Amino acid sequence: MTFSYAQLFTFTESIFHAIGCPEADATLATETLLSADLRGIDSHGVARLVGYVRLWEAGRINASPRVGVTYETPSTAVVDGDGGLGLVVGPKAMKIAIEKAQQVGTGWVSVKNSNHFGIAGYHAMLALAHDMIGLAMTNASPLVAPTYSLDRLLGTNPIAVAVPAGEQPDFVLDMATTTAANGKLEIAQRKNLPIPNGWAQDAEGQPSTDANAVKNGGALQPLGGETGSHKGYGLGAVVDIFSAVLSGANYGPWVPPFVAFLQPSANPVGQGLGHFFGAMRVDAFRPADEFKAHMDNWITTFRESRAVAGKQVLIPGDPERNMAATRLLNGIPLLEPVVRDLEGVGAKFGVRL
Amino acid sequence: MTFSYAQLFTFTESIFHAIGCPEADATLATETLLSADLRGIDSHGVARLVGYVRLWEAGRINASPRVGVTYETPSTAVVDGDGGLGLVVGPKAMKIAIEKAQQVGTGWVSVKNSNHFGIAGYHAMLALAHDMIGLAMTNASPLVAPTYSLDRLLGTNPIAVAVPAGEQPDFVLDMATTTAANGKLEIAQRKNLPIPNGWAQDAEGQPSTDANAVKNGGALQPLGGETGSHKGYGLGAVVDIFSAVLSGANYGPWVPPFVAFLQPSANPVGQGLGHFFGAMRVDAFRPADEFKAHMDNWITTFRESRAVAGKQVLIPGDPERNMAATRLLNGIPLLEPVVRDLEGVGAKFGVRL
Repeated sequence: MTFSYAQLFTFTESIFHAIGCPEADATLATETLLSADLRGIDSHGVARLVGYVRLWEAGRINASPRVGVTYETPSTAVVDGDGGLGLVVGPKAMKIAIEKAQQVGTGWVSVKNSNHFGIAGYHAMLALAHDMIGLAMTNASPLVAPTYSLDRLLGTNPIAVAVPAGEQPDFVLDMATTTAANGKLEIAQRKNLPIPNGWAQDAEGQPSTDANAVKNGGALQPLGGETGSHKGYGLGAVVDIFSAVLSGANYGPWVPPFVAFLQPSANPVGQGLGHFFGAMRVDAFRPADEFKAHMDNWITTFRESRAVAGKQVLIPGDPERNMAATRLLNGIPLLEPVVRDLEGVGAKFGVRL
Repeated sequence: MTFSYAQLFTFTESIFHAIGCPEADATLATETLLSADLRGIDSHGVARLVGYVRLWEAGRINASPRVGVTYETPSTAVVDGDGGLGLVVGPKAMKIAIEKAQQVGTGWVSVKNSNHFGIAGYHAMLALAHDMIGLAMTNASPLVAPTYSLDRLLGTNPIAVAVPAGEQPDFVLDMATTTAANGKLEIAQRKNLPIPNGWAQDAEGQPSTDANAVKNGGALQPLGGETGSHKGYGLGAVVDIFSAVLSGANYGPWVPPFVAFLQPSANPVGQGLGHFFGAMRVDAFRPADEFKAHMDNWITTFRESRAVAGKQVLIPGDPERNMAATRLLNGIPLLEPVVRDLEGVGAKFGVRL
């Protein structure tokens, strides 16, 4: 079943409004959430709307937060998300990073007391319109075992970096620091398929090709596979530290789970989950036109390099941008269980899909 | 053969002095270079001294550079390395980042017109003594093919992040954005051993277990292996852009090769190679003591997690710190060909090893 972006937008906005988000916040949360569906990251889009509503029902999301700066220097800030939707807290914190960059060249904001913020790429891309490089990262529910560990201590902790170009489309990297996102395991589970080596380990810490490994006491593995997972572990750790140890959010195994049926830790080490945002004015380094002309050259050089037979060399962001163009035109396909979930939550609030 | 740190220090310093480095620069370059030997990154240490000397002989290194800021804002700077040793330019640029962080919370320095700077971790760690988080990255000679490309367009482009802790030893991540460093391939070549899948591809872009694959028209592969190399490619690309497109250094295939027998491009797109440094005062986010107490908790939680049978969960930086302690005490072992190379360069300048 396929829905237009406008149709999903109206529906989602109404739901956020119904749970008590002020109008502007409902709109912002919707734009943030649906950017995932547009860009083809279906696991992080409207399919999660029901999850956010359940967290709100469980009293774990504040629909009308007072998002504010609790500490700052000319180039840094800590933002308290007041328990709000990360979908709203994220863009507000990124705006502060951008304003600081306008003043002193760069801005860096660490966020506590927030919730899941959708796709990291959306937040990083907010910098592009200002001729800035944007960075966004977040910690997340613990599903990942560090190298040689049996315990789930990290989330899929994504890193996004958006870099403005001139005539070429912008460079947008948005990646989990695991080999595969949990969503990919869920797809393999539904289809009853094995998973590739390097995605997951079993309860004894051995590599597993069982799609149910994580469910059965195993863990996702950090990016890098058998000979390099210490690198993905290190990157995921940096995301955790920047997002939560700097801000005062929960880190490691204390990060509150996204699903409402799992309780947050009774002994938290901080408030909510954490994000980290950065904005760097390109003209804080060299004239923006000069920078963008060289980015165009960088991009065309890489895109036009010789490719493996039958393949194409892509620039980070190419697949997602193409997907967004297609889906804006042809609509966003949703799986039947997702549609049923949305209809269910719609019925609850008297909103029709 | 094993040499004391002091012995290698005196020798190396004399060589740098002999090629014309001012005294303070010779000392600084030596400290930077030998930090690799101490920390067990043998490929980047004194074994490369001969390489630096050859580049100097080829007129491609300026032994007495005037390293200076060419552009700046309160939180950013571009530094021109004046063709100097990256071993000297790097710490001087990092110092500028630290000074800016003292003023406005964070400092970010992109460097052009430099050369190879040793290990990234050394530079990042300079921030630790100031209760700052340090970041360091550099682009490098093109040996790595982007996902699906046949062309070598990126270096092993490392990322280092150093985070101060309290009673625990500091967190120091220092990683190439490839699965394996080229040095590991060279070891397999010498021993005539195959290499694991995911390290390299052949001239047709197919995965290869031949240690000579890169020599024979192939390339190193980005971190992530068969299902995730687009992530390593994306990270390596970010390092290239921050280090060179921001600063005005050469990027991608234009990065000058480290070996003197390969000529730099006749049509460069910038000056020399590039680095990127960052320093963030932890008390620009929260009181330093509070931050460090939580880092201690982070570190002990991860280190004491349940481990795979026979293994130990490590914190980034553990192996290198342990190695440094051992080698300071017991000396630094060097391979015979390295010793011969050093004796050769010593003879040239009348310096005894």
